[in-house]
Amino acid sequence: METAERLFREIGYQKTTVADIAKALRMSPANVYRFFDSKKSINEAVAERLMRGVEGAIEAIANRKAPAVERLREIIATMHSMNASLYTDDLRMHEMVEVAMTESWEVVHGHIERKGAVFDRVIADGVASGEFKAADPTVASRCVQMSLIRFFHPALMVQCANEPGPTLEQLTDFVLAGLAWTPPEG
Amino acid sequence: METAERLFREIGYQKTTVADIAKALRMSPANVYRFFDSKKSINEAVAERLMRGVEGAIEAIANRKAPAVERLREIIATMHSMNASLYTDDLRMHEMVEVAMTESWEVVHGHIERKGAVFDRVIADGVASGEFKAADPTVASRCVQMSLIRFFHPALMVQCANEPGPTLEQLTDFVLAGLAWTPPEG
Repeated sequence: METAERLFREIGYQKTTVADIAKALRMSPANVYRFFDSKKSINEAVAERLMRGVEGAIEAIANRKAPAVERLREIIATMHSMNASLYTDDLRMHEMVEVAMTESWEVVHGHIERKGAVFDRVIADGVASGEFKAADPTVASRCVQMSLIRFFHPALMVQCANEPGPTLEQLTDFVLAGLAWTPPEG
Repeated sequence: METAERLFREIGYQKTTVADIAKALRMSPANVYRFFDSKKSINEAVAERLMRGVEGAIEAIANRKAPAVERLREIIATMHSMNASLYTDDLRMHEMVEVAMTESWEVVHGHIERKGAVFDRVIADGVASGEFKAADPTVASRCVQMSLIRFFHPALMVQCANEPGPTLEQLTDFVLAGLAWTPPEG
């Protein structure tokens, strides 16, 4: 996976063949095929490994002893900056993630669920501590994540880069304000 | 444009040729090329016409005499339902809009700016009437639009359809709550 990721970075996802990966590892393509049945499954393993790296980073923030609002702010900033450096700053890695999103949605789905669980936990903490108001913390967590999708989703980060729109800081403030607000009864 | 749109719906964007459009109009392809220099520019004209239809509908809502919060709610619901019926319910029209988003971003950009102006106006009305609190109504408007992108953007509407996430109603409530909230000083 490390070798495949390095080759994707160096020569691009489409241009890298299973033979290139085997050659870099000084093994036969047949040996690579013992572990991965196709280039698609190599891509899935590479993409999942990168996504799990992001999940690990935000989980470590979630585990800190700090107010939920602070942790949530840092989780949002970290997810954006890691996704940007992994998937958009490098055009070749962007190609890889675009292919994963088109052809291997189940990998993306797993990531959405796991990072969602981290948001859920921090928002539930904040509701318990009184920092956040939410009749249903799970719904609130989904609203927070969905509101920020422009800064997390690789294709949107590229597409929205030159469009009018709030900065990440402005949108984070706006979303956290919604979370701190007490809705009227009824 | 009407004929091209009908053919895109009936046989799909990729499969429709300029010759098909000319034939349906009982004219020569050369005559079509007098008005549109390529199939791409026919697609742009069709896409822009559909987008202007959505803009006209939300502008009519913005012009009503009603509280800003009511108009904004209806603008959001209308933009979502019109975009869904234009671009996602019909796979062939989805194909057309995907091509426009990939190859003719300036058309999409124009739409983003024009629908943005409608949001700006209603949100500025709401700030003036005291319904909404916002230090900077333009920033607030951008935050509102960006938070709801999952329900407006044709590719996201399809991609997110089977993922966990808030309903449009839940997200609208959440976003309007953020807008009604008074931020602390400083």
